[in-house]
Amino acid sequence: MNTRMIAHLLGIILLIEAVLLLFPMAVALIYGESPMPFLLTVGIILALCLPFSLRKPSNNRIYAKDGFVCVAAAWLLLGAFGALPFVFSGAIPNYVSAFFETVSGLTTTGASILTEIESLPRGILFWRSFTHWIGGMGVLVFMLAILPLAGGQTMHLMRAEVPGPTKGKLVPKMRRTALILYGIYIALTAILAVLLLLCRMPLYDSLVNAFATAGTGGFSVLNSSIAGYNNPAAEWVLAVFMIIFGINFNLYYFLLIRRWRDAVKNEELHVFLIMVLVSTAVITANTWKLFEGAEICIRTAFFQVASIISTAGFSTANYDVWPELSKTVLILLMLTGSCAGSTAGGLKLSRVIILVKSTFREIRHVLRPRSINVVRLDGEAVPDETVRSATSYLALYMILFVLTVLLISVDGFSLETNLTATLACINNVGPGLKEVGPAGNFSCYSLFSQALLALNMLLGRLEIMPVLILLSPRSHKKH
Amino acid sequence: MNTRMIAHLLGIILLIEAVLLLFPMAVALIYGESPMPFLLTVGIILALCLPFSLRKPSNNRIYAKDGFVCVAAAWLLLGAFGALPFVFSGAIPNYVSAFFETVSGLTTTGASILTEIESLPRGILFWRSFTHWIGGMGVLVFMLAILPLAGGQTMHLMRAEVPGPTKGKLVPKMRRTALILYGIYIALTAILAVLLLLCRMPLYDSLVNAFATAGTGGFSVLNSSIAGYNNPAAEWVLAVFMIIFGINFNLYYFLLIRRWRDAVKNEELHVFLIMVLVSTAVITANTWKLFEGAEICIRTAFFQVASIISTAGFSTANYDVWPELSKTVLILLMLTGSCAGSTAGGLKLSRVIILVKSTFREIRHVLRPRSINVVRLDGEAVPDETVRSATSYLALYMILFVLTVLLISVDGFSLETNLTATLACINNVGPGLKEVGPAGNFSCYSLFSQALLALNMLLGRLEIMPVLILLSPRSHKKH
Repeated sequence: MNTRMIAHLLGIILLIEAVLLLFPMAVALIYGESPMPFLLTVGIILALCLPFSLRKPSNNRIYAKDGFVCVAAAWLLLGAFGALPFVFSGAIPNYVSAFFETVSGLTTTGASILTEIESLPRGILFWRSFTHWIGGMGVLVFMLAILPLAGGQTMHLMRAEVPGPTKGKLVPKMRRTALILYGIYIALTAILAVLLLLCRMPLYDSLVNAFATAGTGGFSVLNSSIAGYNNPAAEWVLAVFMIIFGINFNLYYFLLIRRWRDAVKNEELHVFLIMVLVSTAVITANTWKLFEGAEICIRTAFFQVASIISTAGFSTANYDVWPELSKTVLILLMLTGSCAGSTAGGLKLSRVIILVKSTFREIRHVLRPRSINVVRLDGEAVPDETVRSATSYLALYMILFVLTVLLISVDGFSLETNLTATLACINNVGPGLKEVGPAGNFSCYSLFSQALLALNMLLGRLEIMPVLILLSPRSHKKH
Repeated sequence: MNTRMIAHLLGIILLIEAVLLLFPMAVALIYGESPMPFLLTVGIILALCLPFSLRKPSNNRIYAKDGFVCVAAAWLLLGAFGALPFVFSGAIPNYVSAFFETVSGLTTTGASILTEIESLPRGILFWRSFTHWIGGMGVLVFMLAILPLAGGQTMHLMRAEVPGPTKGKLVPKMRRTALILYGIYIALTAILAVLLLLCRMPLYDSLVNAFATAGTGGFSVLNSSIAGYNNPAAEWVLAVFMIIFGINFNLYYFLLIRRWRDAVKNEELHVFLIMVLVSTAVITANTWKLFEGAEICIRTAFFQVASIISTAGFSTANYDVWPELSKTVLILLMLTGSCAGSTAGGLKLSRVIILVKSTFREIRHVLRPRSINVVRLDGEAVPDETVRSATSYLALYMILFVLTVLLISVDGFSLETNLTATLACINNVGPGLKEVGPAGNFSCYSLFSQALLALNMLLGRLEIMPVLILLSPRSHKKH
């Protein structure tokens, strides 16, 4: 392992975080709040990281394993330093809880341990929502976009950070791709913020909600989330944009370069849209009696479906009190998540599609052992390697899931709470049901469980492998 | 597909069921109850099946698909006809519920829709428990043991009915193997019944509980299950025998032919015993305050662990009121189940071991893409085919699980009820938690849900494939 090069890259990544911390500091200054929590954090980062970031090692080759270790360590460190402003400002005095909140932000989970949000300083809340936006597209991809690194190197980093079973056709031209994707990301966020302003949402709220939506995070600056605005137009806009940010960004790139057919013929997109429509219809029918009027019922159902399938986790209603069928549909959406290559979490629909198709292949194989069966996606054969890694991912995911539920059950909350808390964290959704439902939060859990759930968010965001490799003792041997 | 040969085999299997129905009829006569429910059923079976069973078709070749279809159809028909005595006797007037109860018996699930058991006729309760014993070792294996069929044919049938990811080394000498396995099964059941008699349990109760334990079913003839006997010695005996019936029967065969090393070195056995010990220890510590005295606490914890991991589903305590940690441990045991090649249900431990090891292989593969990694079990390389089918099985299992939970959630019970009801049915455990916990039963579910859960039991018992192939329209084409 090339430890020096990894340290160098980590140094640069944390410097980027220091620069990003200047934005919430500016907000703090605008609102007449103390900039000290941010200044202190920036100072600490500079003191610790400048030596590493300035000195470029002579051997700058990165191997496959280095890529995974670097990505996992980067996310861990971003969370560790990003938590400091919460502690220094006194918003979250306990460091473990602050780490939970920051990791929840960066991984675009949106699970919170805060019980009272509205009284916190504006700068701190800006940072909290800004982490969603930073984490949404990935910090390392950002570094790749601005750093002149050799092509082969960046592959290993990108592969470890970009979610989904296949890395798409865009990977080879790495740097240019990263820039284009960031351009789309920034443009869509800006459009959303402007639309929210047009819905008469204040500028500050438009910005933070745009960040949280773009990253499909779900942190809100109101105690009652989006419901607190009582703004139907804004709810429609946010719901539509959660769907937009749940779609593979490659498709927007295809639209830009006018490869319409590639964009429209995407199988994952079809499944995604069908799931949104069917789920909204089922929940609308199922909750019809709870609402007065068709518009509010359809709007609330659509908003909640968009919020859960995109793993944003905003809420306009306490769906914990909805009928079981609606809740179960929402849990199913939590599980699948949205498209690969979007900012959303979850298993990713293309992985689910591959899994479903591979089971059909297995049935065909049992019936006719000698026939050759291929799993197809978008009309093309999926390599066996990809199918195998999707099924392994499911196994790994299940093991992690079961172990986490087992360990946090020590705290004594109900099975429903523990299951949905774990699901909401691994899949980067945010809220679950019961104690951790839209009306509750994660502060009830012990610090051990909070740390464990934060680890789950990282494992979910990075799709398990990089974090496991970082934590496994064998990976630290030099060779 | 050789439809005639399948019809012929199905005819024979139902004739066997007719013969087996004479046992509960004899019990009914002994207790002075009406034998009519059984006589009627036998009459119907004879009238419908004799034409098929007597005429042996000229072409008696069975193909892979035929094997699956035959096994799935056989289990479905055994349940369909086995349900008749419950309806005719008035014990379960509704046919769907009677079908649920019979399938629950045959698949050794032990989930019941009965609220009041003790007032039912003795003959009917004998039949109910007897179905566990019939289903435990599989009816088709029994047929293979007594029928002179050509070797290659029986392979396809055995493969479809015997659970577990690998079919073991005993498969080739099919008929002899089947006879030996039945010998072991009958001998162990007889020993258990005698031991229960020595614990001062009445003869009738000793027999039905021995049947339910041997098949790891879990139907009891008391409303409060085994707790109703208030007999600590019998509880210890039953717990130990549930463990014994959760172990791969091949190991007993190895013991018989004095291949001690093969029996003792079995990796699955080690994992099984460690899981039993650790779970018992955790639950004992966790429920210490609920019991007065160490013996009753350890006994109850051990009994419940043995009952759940072996998927029998007996209870000596209402574990639904235990602390969350204990309940979560039990749910984990429900999920894994016991060893392949035993009468127990669940995912099977060897499959879980293969899944865990294959994920480690995947990690090694990511770290060193060019290295060759093999999954090993008992020191031998597991074929890639087996690994692939284990991971596909997990995917299929998950899809089935999620869909079932979604569909039964329409009935409006809590998530915990729906999740554990589905788990208890697919994995052939029996009771779940909350409404379907040890103090509840499945009668609360709608008839649609009952039918769906019965289908899940069959899918779980036959490890999904055969039932899916039977239900898929493509398999009915002739070619």
